[in-house]
Amino acid sequence: MKENLFSRERFVRWGDCDPAGIIYAPRVYEYAMDTLEEFYMEVLGSSWMDLKAGSIVGTPGLRAEIEYVSPLVPEQKFTITISIKDIGRSTVTYEMAGVDDSGNQFFRVEIVMCFISQTDFESTDIPEDIRKPLLEYHDVCEETLRR
Amino acid sequence: MKENLFSRERFVRWGDCDPAGIIYAPRVYEYAMDTLEEFYMEVLGSSWMDLKAGSIVGTPGLRAEIEYVSPLVPEQKFTITISIKDIGRSTVTYEMAGVDDSGNQFFRVEIVMCFISQTDFESTDIPEDIRKPLLEYHDVCEETLRR
Amino acid sequence: MKENLFSRERFVRWGDCDPAGIIYAPRVYEYAMDTLEEFYMEVLGSSWMDLKAGSIVGTPGLRAEIEYVSPLVPEQKFTITISIKDIGRSTVTYEMAGVDDSGNQFFRVEIVMCFISQTDFESTDIPEDIRKPLLEYHDVCEETLRR
Amino acid sequence: MKENLFSRERFVRWGDCDPAGIIYAPRVYEYAMDTLEEFYMEVLGSSWMDLKAGSIVGTPGLRAEIEYVSPLVPEQKFTITISIKDIGRSTVTYEMAGVDDSGNQFFRVEIVMCFISQTDFESTDIPEDIRKPLLEYHDVCEETLRR
Repeated sequence: MKENLFSRERFVRWGDCDPAGIIYAPRVYEYAMDTLEEFYMEVLGSSWMDLKAGSIVGTPGLRAEIEYVSPLVPEQKFTITISIKDIGRSTVTYEMAGVDDSGNQFFRVEIVMCFISQTDFESTDIPEDIRKPLLEYHDVCEETLRR
Repeated sequence: MKENLFSRERFVRWGDCDPAGIIYAPRVYEYAMDTLEEFYMEVLGSSWMDLKAGSIVGTPGLRAEIEYVSPLVPEQKFTITISIKDIGRSTVTYEMAGVDDSGNQFFRVEIVMCFISQTDFESTDIPEDIRKPLLEYHDVCEETLRR
Repeated sequence: MKENLFSRERFVRWGDCDPAGIIYAPRVYEYAMDTLEEFYMEVLGSSWMDLKAGSIVGTPGLRAEIEYVSPLVPEQKFTITISIKDIGRSTVTYEMAGVDDSGNQFFRVEIVMCFISQTDFESTDIPEDIRKPLLEYHDVCEETLRR
Repeated sequence: MKENLFSRERFVRWGDCDPAGIIYAPRVYEYAMDTLEEFYMEVLGSSWMDLKAGSIVGTPGLRAEIEYVSPLVPEQKFTITISIKDIGRSTVTYEMAGVDDSGNQFFRVEIVMCFISQTDFESTDIPEDIRKPLLEYHDVCEETLRR
C-alpha cells in the first residue's frame, strides 16, 4: 500500500506535448521537480526559498535519471509518488513514479539532490531540521515497501 | 581531438536560472534535446518532423540520465558535443557533454532514443536511411575516442 | 462578487522565477494558458484535444496582452479568474486576473482566441456546441459585473 | 532597410509546438525575451546579471503584447528584429517582429520594460550608462524608419 507516501495528482497538459501527440520528454523531469518542490514545503517543512534564506541550495547536484515506461498523451491523469531511497551526509536520493488509477506506469524518476552552500557551491551537511523529517519519511517508505 | 564531433555553442540564459542564481536543473535536459534536434536535421538528414511524416517518432523512449558536474550560472558559455555510444535495432544511445573553452565540464547527458511507430507506439526498426548516417557517425565517434 | 466565475488557485514555483528572485515574465502567460485549458475542459466541455479531433484549433490566434501590476515572488499564492469580454464569429476575448486572498492584484491577461481550421489555418465559425456554453458563461460574467 | 537593427535568426523547435502541429502560443513571448536578453548584452553593454549586480531589475514591468499574424510550424526559420519605440524615465518600449526571408510576418511583440530597484521593487531611473546606448539605438531606429 502506497497510501502513506507523498503524492500529487495531475494531468498532461496540451502545451507539454509535441506535434507527435505525446509528451515532450523533458516535461517529465519538470513534473518530478514540481512534486519534489511541494514535498519540501509540506513534508520537510523547508521550501527552496527557506533553504536559500539559510544560504543553502538543495539542487539536483549529482544526477537525475528518467525512465519512460509508456508514452503520456494530453489529458492523461496520473499520480506521482515520492519515496526516499537513500540519505547521505549531504545528499538524498529520491525515487518517483507516475502511475494512473489502474496501475499503469508511465515513468520512473530518480533524482539525487545535493545540499550545497550558496557561497562556494560546495556540498554541505544536510541541516538538522531537514534531516529529521527526511529520516522519518524514509522510515515510512521502508515500512510501505515491507508490507 | 573532438573536432569531428557534432557540437553546438550556447550560453546559459537568465530565464533558465532560478532564484539561487544557478541553472534550474531540468533546463540541462532541454539543452541536450535542442542539440539532438539539430543533430537529426544536420547529420542524420531527417528532422523530427520528417520522421513524423513517415509515422515514426524518435523519442527518448527508454531512458535519459543527467549528471551535474559543476553548476551553470547565467551567461556561462559552453559547448555541447554529441557522440553515439550504441546503436540497436530500434534504439540509439547518445552521450552528450557540456564543456567550456578551458575544458571545465558542467554536465553529461545520456539519452536512449527509441524509434516507435506513431500508430501503436510500439518500437520499430530504425529506418535504413537513418541507420546509415548513424553508423557513419558512430565510426567517427570511435575513431575520435581512439586517438 | 466573483464567486460564479471560473477560477484556479496556484502558487509561484521556484523554477518559474529568475535570479532576481521574481517571476520570469513569460511564465505569467503560461499560467493564463493553463487556466484557459481547464476552462475549455470544464466549462466549455471540449478540451483542446477534442477540438483537434474535430480538425479545429482554438489558439491565441490574434493577440495576447499581459499587464504586470505587482511582481510575483516564489511561493506567492494567487487565484486566476476567467471572464469573457467578447464573443465574435470565430473569436473569443478572455480576460484573466491574478489576485491574492487580500485582493492584491498581480497581473491581468487578455487573450483573443481564434478558432481556426487545422487543414488550412483559416479562421472558422465557433462550433455550435461550444458557442452555447460560451454564451452562457458570458451571461454569468455580465451578471457578476453588474452586481 | 532594416539592416542596422539588432536581429537574431532562429527556427521553431519541435518541443515548442503542440499536438496541433503549430507553435504553443506562449513560446513566442520567450523568443522575444531571448532576443531582448542578447540585445542587452550586445547593444546596451549590460546583461541582466550586470543589472542585478547593481541591484536593478530590467523586467517586463508594465506590459507585454503579442500579436499573432500567421502560425509558426516546426523548423520554420525566421528573423526577430528589435526596435525601440519609446524611452521614458524608467521604462523602455520595445517593438519586435518575426519575419522570414520572403518578408512573411509571423508575429509582432511589444514589451514595456521597466527598470525597478531590487530592494523595494519600485521603479527607478534608467542608469546613465544604459540610457546612452538606448538613445543611440533609438536614433538608429528612427533613421531606419525614415528611409
